[in-house]
Amino acid sequence: MGRITCANVLSDLYAMGVTECDNMLMLLGVSNKLSTDEKEIVVKLIMQGFRDCALEAGTSIQGGQTVVNPWMVIGGVATSVCLPSEYCQPDGAVPGDVLVLTKALGTQVAVNVHQWLIEQSDRWRQVSTVLTEQQARQAYQSATRQMARLNRTAARLMRQYNAHACTDVTGFGLLGHANNLAACQKADVSMVVHNLPIIAGMAAASAHLGGAFGLLRGTSAETSGGLLVAMSRTDAAEYCKALEATSSSDGGGAAWIVGVVEAGSRSAVIADKPRIIEVNAAGNTE
Amino acid sequence: MGRITCANVLSDLYAMGVTECDNMLMLLGVSNKLSTDEKEIVVKLIMQGFRDCALEAGTSIQGGQTVVNPWMVIGGVATSVCLPSEYCQPDGAVPGDVLVLTKALGTQVAVNVHQWLIEQSDRWRQVSTVLTEQQARQAYQSATRQMARLNRTAARLMRQYNAHACTDVTGFGLLGHANNLAACQKADVSMVVHNLPIIAGMAAASAHLGGAFGLLRGTSAETSGGLLVAMSRTDAAEYCKALEATSSSDGGGAAWIVGVVEAGSRSAVIADKPRIIEVNAAGNTE
Repeated sequence: MGRITCANVLSDLYAMGVTECDNMLMLLGVSNKLSTDEKEIVVKLIMQGFRDCALEAGTSIQGGQTVVNPWMVIGGVATSVCLPSEYCQPDGAVPGDVLVLTKALGTQVAVNVHQWLIEQSDRWRQVSTVLTEQQARQAYQSATRQMARLNRTAARLMRQYNAHACTDVTGFGLLGHANNLAACQKADVSMVVHNLPIIAGMAAASAHLGGAFGLLRGTSAETSGGLLVAMSRTDAAEYCKALEATSSSDGGGAAWIVGVVEAGSRSAVIADKPRIIEVNAAGNTE
Repeated sequence: MGRITCANVLSDLYAMGVTECDNMLMLLGVSNKLSTDEKEIVVKLIMQGFRDCALEAGTSIQGGQTVVNPWMVIGGVATSVCLPSEYCQPDGAVPGDVLVLTKALGTQVAVNVHQWLIEQSDRWRQVSTVLTEQQARQAYQSATRQMARLNRTAARLMRQYNAHACTDVTGFGLLGHANNLAACQKADVSMVVHNLPIIAGMAAASAHLGGAFGLLRGTSAETSGGLLVAMSRTDAAEYCKALEATSSSDGGGAAWIVGVVEAGSRSAVIADKPRIIEVNAAGNTE
């Protein structure tokens, strides 16, 4: 959880193409329902995960705040002071650009399905007609691994390959963030998503539950999701290739061209019958 | 609550002598126990108070995060990028310096006593033998007013009057923060507190409750407390005068010389039988 939070916090900098973080704060609400022993183990592990991830990102935690709370809360702040040449303005998408996504969708579904499996709940029994226990566990591992992965390499390459605009995909889901991105462009554009790369099995699980979480409509919340980058088609192809080449060193660097930028009215849509790309545990497309 | 939080957050900058804040974030946990109507009123007022206080401080809120939580949480982050000439290192106190405090102590006691009064609890019946209802209400108002007051003028004047070291007094109480300050000085010093300026009536209330909150031992937590500044005796006298002269414009600017810096072993103590200074609602010493 600490690692994922830290990666999620840093992602806001990475979405601006900023790869060097000057300073981080860690914010903790420690549950008053934990016993002293539980606190000792859980809080220490969360702080360690946050700290490890910050170190991996080449930064460190200089402060923060811890409070008592009825449930666990974890968050943080990442700050950088930059020259204009060190970040990308997120408003330069133009018709003809394509949209690249750097992590698969479906983290919310994977985490919930896994929880149902552990609890052997009714919903798990429902999902288990389309998903084996092993598939559910793999999806959860896959989700955890990609949530803990930094968008730093994706950010560095984004500057190198002349990104026109970028956001990161988190609580509002792919469509929500694409909408926000479309709305803040200088040009009158719309964004159309044709492909949905989804953690293996999660599209079937969502469909089987009557469209649970809105995953296939692009509205399922993601935690520490990937970057959604608008860039020219040529740059995008090079960008995806370069990002995939880093896979071995930073534990997964798949990227998919998921849509296009057209002249339009500053909004985003998911195309009718989008193509579902099943992404397996190794981050590769099946 | 919004105002107080904002003043408390900014206080960390002011304790470094930094008077210009570049950017603020507001962090909100909205209680899931509030009805829609309550949310509409309470959350709006808290956000408005935070925003008003930020404006008063010459800064503004550029971001933040809101989450759902079992109880209300409010916090924030204040960031400034400074030249070395724009802040004070907090490590230059030397023997012979005196300690100045810029807000009275006792906010925790005042807020609790007021709560007991509202609830007409047993503790209120106990305290009411040494405190009238009117005194309890005045103490609460006085506490609220000073918690919402910015330490900005105190910070500006501190640079002007050559402060040697400073901290702000919050959760660890006067003694806790004095201890931290003494521990981080370049010189081997100790800090001895002789005077305790306390919101009128709160010393009696605390004493009557068997030393409740540790107010007379300097360990009662403060919220958005004053600055504790080490400076030469001459500068301190001028500093207090200058700060008091700003009272009318910024709603209270009392300051008291509360102790001395001596050669010692990097810790702080409250002197035996410290002098209690009763501070009335107008921020003046009675």
